[in-house]
Amino acid sequence: MASKAGTRLCVTYELACAERQAALRAREIAVEQTVELPEGTFGEEIEREVVGRVESIDAIRESCTRVIISYDARTVGGEIPQLLNLLFGNISLKKGIRIAAVDWPDALLREVPGPRWGVDGLRRLCRVESRRPLLCTALKPMGLSARQLADRCRDFARGGIDLIKDDHGLADQESARFEERVHRCVEAVVEAGGGSLYFPNITAGFSEIERRAELARQLGCRGVLISPLLVGADTVRRVVERHGLAVLAHPALAGAFFHPDHGIAPELLLGQIFRMLGSDGVIYPNAGGRFPFDEATCAAINANLRSPLGSLRPAFPVPAGGIDLARVPEWIRVYGPDTIFLIGGSLYAQRNLVEASRAFREAVTGAG
Amino acid sequence: MASKAGTRLCVTYELACAERQAALRAREIAVEQTVELPEGTFGEEIEREVVGRVESIDAIRESCTRVIISYDARTVGGEIPQLLNLLFGNISLKKGIRIAAVDWPDALLREVPGPRWGVDGLRRLCRVESRRPLLCTALKPMGLSARQLADRCRDFARGGIDLIKDDHGLADQESARFEERVHRCVEAVVEAGGGSLYFPNITAGFSEIERRAELARQLGCRGVLISPLLVGADTVRRVVERHGLAVLAHPALAGAFFHPDHGIAPELLLGQIFRMLGSDGVIYPNAGGRFPFDEATCAAINANLRSPLGSLRPAFPVPAGGIDLARVPEWIRVYGPDTIFLIGGSLYAQRNLVEASRAFREAVTGAG
Repeated sequence: MASKAGTRLCVTYELACAERQAALRAREIAVEQTVELPEGTFGEEIEREVVGRVESIDAIRESCTRVIISYDARTVGGEIPQLLNLLFGNISLKKGIRIAAVDWPDALLREVPGPRWGVDGLRRLCRVESRRPLLCTALKPMGLSARQLADRCRDFARGGIDLIKDDHGLADQESARFEERVHRCVEAVVEAGGGSLYFPNITAGFSEIERRAELARQLGCRGVLISPLLVGADTVRRVVERHGLAVLAHPALAGAFFHPDHGIAPELLLGQIFRMLGSDGVIYPNAGGRFPFDEATCAAINANLRSPLGSLRPAFPVPAGGIDLARVPEWIRVYGPDTIFLIGGSLYAQRNLVEASRAFREAVTGAG
Repeated sequence: MASKAGTRLCVTYELACAERQAALRAREIAVEQTVELPEGTFGEEIEREVVGRVESIDAIRESCTRVIISYDARTVGGEIPQLLNLLFGNISLKKGIRIAAVDWPDALLREVPGPRWGVDGLRRLCRVESRRPLLCTALKPMGLSARQLADRCRDFARGGIDLIKDDHGLADQESARFEERVHRCVEAVVEAGGGSLYFPNITAGFSEIERRAELARQLGCRGVLISPLLVGADTVRRVVERHGLAVLAHPALAGAFFHPDHGIAPELLLGQIFRMLGSDGVIYPNAGGRFPFDEATCAAINANLRSPLGSLRPAFPVPAGGIDLARVPEWIRVYGPDTIFLIGGSLYAQRNLVEASRAFREAVTGAG
């Protein structure tokens, strides 16, 4: 019904139990995630307005039952932390509950920021308006000096990489202080001809994030890297709204949620929630690399990042985590042009970073 | 060795593999969590200074091996988000890795805030300097008006509850706006005689947290409730350092990390890391309630919150999540006096909140 879609959040859970136990467990979830009180201690109005409503119960297989519970969008109140809390706050502490999908009400989608730049905006920032995938790499390792990292940045830029981001472990360690690193890397991409963008990692303590975002902007960066789960999911909104920067989101810690019978489905967390926070591109561990995502999961993440979702702009999928340069043309055929390919190790393994970057660029632009 | 303890972070992992596979997996973790590069693409100095060092490998049982890897504290650079990233950022996305314990170097412990108030400070705030446990309850449910919640707050205060906190799902929903709720609840505890403290939930978006912390302080609150994993772990530091408020930390989302063969041990995350962030009390789901923690886990959390840890103050364990009033004297014998007992449902089930609170108080003060 239109009115239901407009104001209620419909959450699909997979419960690790038989259908006959699912009604009781579903009711427990509906109560736990809202009023968190024993049955019989809240009145009818609270029951009607606040407690989750069990909408359906369907066996998937012997010990797995799909349950849909709907919640009034007003219980979220438009706030990202409370959204995460409603979805998985307390029930994270229970066994055998996995959130497979959410049907988002318009009322809630209107209150989240979504990508400020999105696919088209990031293409404009990179001056790549033809429909080819974007190329991305990571500056590393931690332990190099700001000058050494900037040298690598220059090589990548000369080789034609569109987006050069900090490794997500680069913070403000004494080996390469944030301010000097950003200053030198921005200088390096300018020296190389200016076709590339450098996105520093601003993942940091609460007080520092703002300072680093502002510094990055002042030094000429158009975007940044953030690990939302390390700094608080709503931080992305702040950086986007206050500083106007594009955001690449990194999935650090996200794997804690990705269990077959517990957590939040990757395509929901990385594909929809990270997009709703304001990420313009979302990094995830690609199938066939050194992390265990399969192709179906990656395809589902891609679909959720790009599909219509209220009036939110689409965001770029950024497959990463051990993509072999040799397989890039194949991945382009599978993932399509609205993709950012993030390749680090496979370039570093070739030593000459300019040539390695050119080969990567060739693989991407030649495959169109 | 003293020097190693002083500068290196020793992380104990349990790997879901046999001992013969563990050397390779340990090396992969040591590289993944630091330089994140293929073998052979970084030099000796980086290897020595930055890459984790595998210190020991010991079989626990056939398919579980304990591995200790040490990291230079400088890779953390004194920042909480990077600490979480070093511990579990990328490897969260891999299977069969659980962090069982960390041996913290002095260099790092000096850089984290730790509790500002701690056990003694929170006792002073509550004016309960005798060594009895503190009583805590939660205002709920979401959906009541600010006035209705304040009425409950007054009843709890009259009944002698030391700490009355918001339910962690109370944010700024239209049913009970933050400002009005805090105003009325502070007024209610004053009317009741002023022996109780009211801690509002300031878990909110990045821009809002500061405003709510400041508002809470201005309206007379001495402490607040925060869910660190919903807002970013370092937010606790900010609230403590800038606003001087005591912090009760809520474990929302934390259960994502608590798997037998994946994640971070509860006694490490809730008992040490939450304390290092600056929490004066840490709420966790007690054994025998409606969550699946066992008594050994609870005892380990309690021990980590209270034991010496650098020069950090001890923090209060706050067992919760379905504690039956009738069992309080028994829990006091097990957990000792430096405990905050958080009972919500078992009081609400009795309808007369003043009397229920008095019974709770009797159970605690009578048991000393």
